[in-house]
Amino acid sequence: MRMAKGFHFEVTARRGSARLGLLTTPHGVVETPAFMPVGTAGSVKSLSPAEVFRTGARIVLGNTYHLMLRPGAELVAEMGGLHRFAAWPGAMLTDSGGYQVLSLAERRKIDDDGVTFRSHIDGSPVRLGPEESIRVQELLGADIAMAFDECPPSTAPLAQIEQAMRRTTAWAGRCLEARRRGDQALFGIVQGGTHRELRASHAEQICALPFDGFALGGFAVGESTEDLHAGVRFAAALLPDDRPRYLMGVGTPEDLESATASGIDLFDCVLPTRNARNGQAFTSEGRVNIKQARYTADRGPLDPACSCECCSTFTRAYLRHLYQAREMLAARMLSLHNLHFYGELMRSIRERLRGS
Amino acid sequence: MRMAKGFHFEVTARRGSARLGLLTTPHGVVETPAFMPVGTAGSVKSLSPAEVFRTGARIVLGNTYHLMLRPGAELVAEMGGLHRFAAWPGAMLTDSGGYQVLSLAERRKIDDDGVTFRSHIDGSPVRLGPEESIRVQELLGADIAMAFDECPPSTAPLAQIEQAMRRTTAWAGRCLEARRRGDQALFGIVQGGTHRELRASHAEQICALPFDGFALGGFAVGESTEDLHAGVRFAAALLPDDRPRYLMGVGTPEDLESATASGIDLFDCVLPTRNARNGQAFTSEGRVNIKQARYTADRGPLDPACSCECCSTFTRAYLRHLYQAREMLAARMLSLHNLHFYGELMRSIRERLRGS
Repeated sequence: MRMAKGFHFEVTARRGSARLGLLTTPHGVVETPAFMPVGTAGSVKSLSPAEVFRTGARIVLGNTYHLMLRPGAELVAEMGGLHRFAAWPGAMLTDSGGYQVLSLAERRKIDDDGVTFRSHIDGSPVRLGPEESIRVQELLGADIAMAFDECPPSTAPLAQIEQAMRRTTAWAGRCLEARRRGDQALFGIVQGGTHRELRASHAEQICALPFDGFALGGFAVGESTEDLHAGVRFAAALLPDDRPRYLMGVGTPEDLESATASGIDLFDCVLPTRNARNGQAFTSEGRVNIKQARYTADRGPLDPACSCECCSTFTRAYLRHLYQAREMLAARMLSLHNLHFYGELMRSIRERLRGS
Repeated sequence: MRMAKGFHFEVTARRGSARLGLLTTPHGVVETPAFMPVGTAGSVKSLSPAEVFRTGARIVLGNTYHLMLRPGAELVAEMGGLHRFAAWPGAMLTDSGGYQVLSLAERRKIDDDGVTFRSHIDGSPVRLGPEESIRVQELLGADIAMAFDECPPSTAPLAQIEQAMRRTTAWAGRCLEARRRGDQALFGIVQGGTHRELRASHAEQICALPFDGFALGGFAVGESTEDLHAGVRFAAALLPDDRPRYLMGVGTPEDLESATASGIDLFDCVLPTRNARNGQAFTSEGRVNIKQARYTADRGPLDPACSCECCSTFTRAYLRHLYQAREMLAARMLSLHNLHFYGELMRSIRERLRGS
C-alpha cells in the first residue's frame, strides 16, 4: 500500500522490537525514532525555528485546536500554510483538535458527529467533527494530519472507553472520506486505554483502514508508568510493521527509551518545554529544579555533559536568578536545553539501533 | 586629568557640536555615540547576550536597584561580577539606584543622607545612599558606576529641583570619597531640570569634581520634546569636552539624532525593549504597532529595510499572530529588531561623523 504523495517510510535497522527508520515527507527526511517538539500556536514557546532545528528536531507538532481559533486556518492557508507562516524549515504534523477540545474547551458537548464547545479565547461557540478537522488540517497544510478521535481518561469507566472507541472508528472512516489533499499523510489513532482486549480490537478496526501511519492515543492520560510502558509494548506490536508508529503525548526520557524499545517511531510531548517554563531541566544528572536555593551560588552549567547554548554560556546561579526574576531568558534557555536534551536522547537511541 | 585605570576617551572627529569618539574600557572599546540597551535585572529582557552584541551594542546598562534586591550585589560579586554572571562580552554601566528607588520603591523617604524604602519584591526595608550605592556598584563591578543622585520630575517646583541639586552635589562628593576601586570609572550627574540657570550652576559644581565622565540627569522626565532637545543642547555644552557625556534615560530615535548633534556620546533607554514587549516596532517606515488588524495578512517583513533575524525570517502577519497569542517569541523578535534598529541608527550617526 502506497503512502500519500511525497511520503515514504522505510525501516533501516531493527533491534528486538525497536526500529530505526527514515520517514520521507514533502518537507524533509525524518530519521526515526524522532521526538516532535510541540508548537502549540505555531511557535515552540520562546524559541525561534532555527533554534528548534538546531536541537536536532526535524518535525514539530502544531495544535489544530489553538490554530483554528487563532489566527484561524483560513489565514494560515492564505499565508502559504503553517510551514511558511511559522518559518519552520522541517516537517510538521497537526493533531486533530479532538484531544484539546476535550481537555481545554469550555462547556463542551460530545455527540456522534463531533464536539460543540466554546472557545477558551472569546467564548464563541465552535463545532468540530471529523470532516471539519480534516478541512482545517488541510488548510493548515502540515505534512501529516491526524484523524479526529475521542480520547477518554484512562480511569474512565469501560463503557465510556468503548463508546470512545466506536466513535473513533466511525470518525476514522469519515476522516478518510473527507480527505481532499493527496499530498498530506493521514494517520489513524488506536484507542482502548490500558485494556488489552479493547486495544487489540480497536487496532484491528483502525489498522484495516488505508491510513499512512498509525498512532496510539489514550496513553499518558492518568495511568501508572508501568501500565503505560506495558500498554505501549502490547499495543505497538498490534500496529502494521511497514507504517510509522506514533505514540501521542508521551513523554519523559524514560518513556521514550521504553517506547522506542517497543517499536514506536514518533513522539510528541509538551514536557520538555512546559517543564522548562516551570524551572525544570532534564539533565545527564537527572532533573534539576533551577528555582531551588541550592543553586543560588552554583557556578556549574545546567548540565555538565551538554553542549547547548544554555549550558555553554550560563551558570546555574544565573539561570536561577533569571527564573526568580521572571526573566523570559530563563524559560527560553531551559526550553532550549530541554529540547537539546531530548534531541540528543533520540540521536543516541538511533545511534544504538544503527550500531546493532 | 587621567581616567580610572583601563579607561581612555578620545574624540576622533567632530561636526559642529557632535563628536565621534572611542571610549576604551576594561571590557572593550566602545565607539561613540553609542546606545546602551537596558539589562534591568542582568538580562536585556528576552534576549541572549550574543543577540544583544550582534545588534551592535558594545555596552549595556544594569540597574543597581533591581540587582541589589535580587539576586543581591554580594552574590553577583561572588559569581565574578556582573559581566561574568550575565555572560555579557562587552562593557557595562550600572546606574546608582537613585532614580529607580524614587520611581519604583514603596513608602520611600528621602533625607540628606539617602533614601529609605521598602523593597517592591518582599516589602523589606532598605536604605540606599551615596556610600551604599558605590559599595553596591563596586560589588556589581560594571566598568562604569554612576554617582548617587536625586532626580525630581521636570514639573517639580523650583524649590524641589534646587534641593535635589544641593543633595546631588553633596552626594557626588561623598560618592568620590567612598570609592575604593581604581579600575571602575565613576560618572557625575548634572541635574537642574529645564531651568538653564540651574543647569549651568549645577554643571559648574559637578564638573569641578574629579569624575571620569559626566551625565545629564533629569531629562525625559515629563518635559516636551522641544524642551528636551533644547535643554540637552544647552546642557551638553556645559560639560567638559574631553570626557564622555551621557544623557540618561533618553530616548526615541529622534531624540538620539538631536542629542548626538548636541554632543552627547552615550545613551540608555528602555524604549526599544519595553515598546517591543508592547508590540511596537521602530522601523524605517516609522512606528509599527504589530497588534493592529491591518497587519493580519501582511506578508511583508516588520521593516523592509532591515536585515535582522526577525525581519529576514518572519512576516508581519506571523508576528501579529504571535503577539495576539501572547507567545514569547513576539516580544523577543520585536526586541531584537528594535535594538538592531537602534544599533543601526547609532552606526549611521557615527558613519556620518566619520565622513565629515
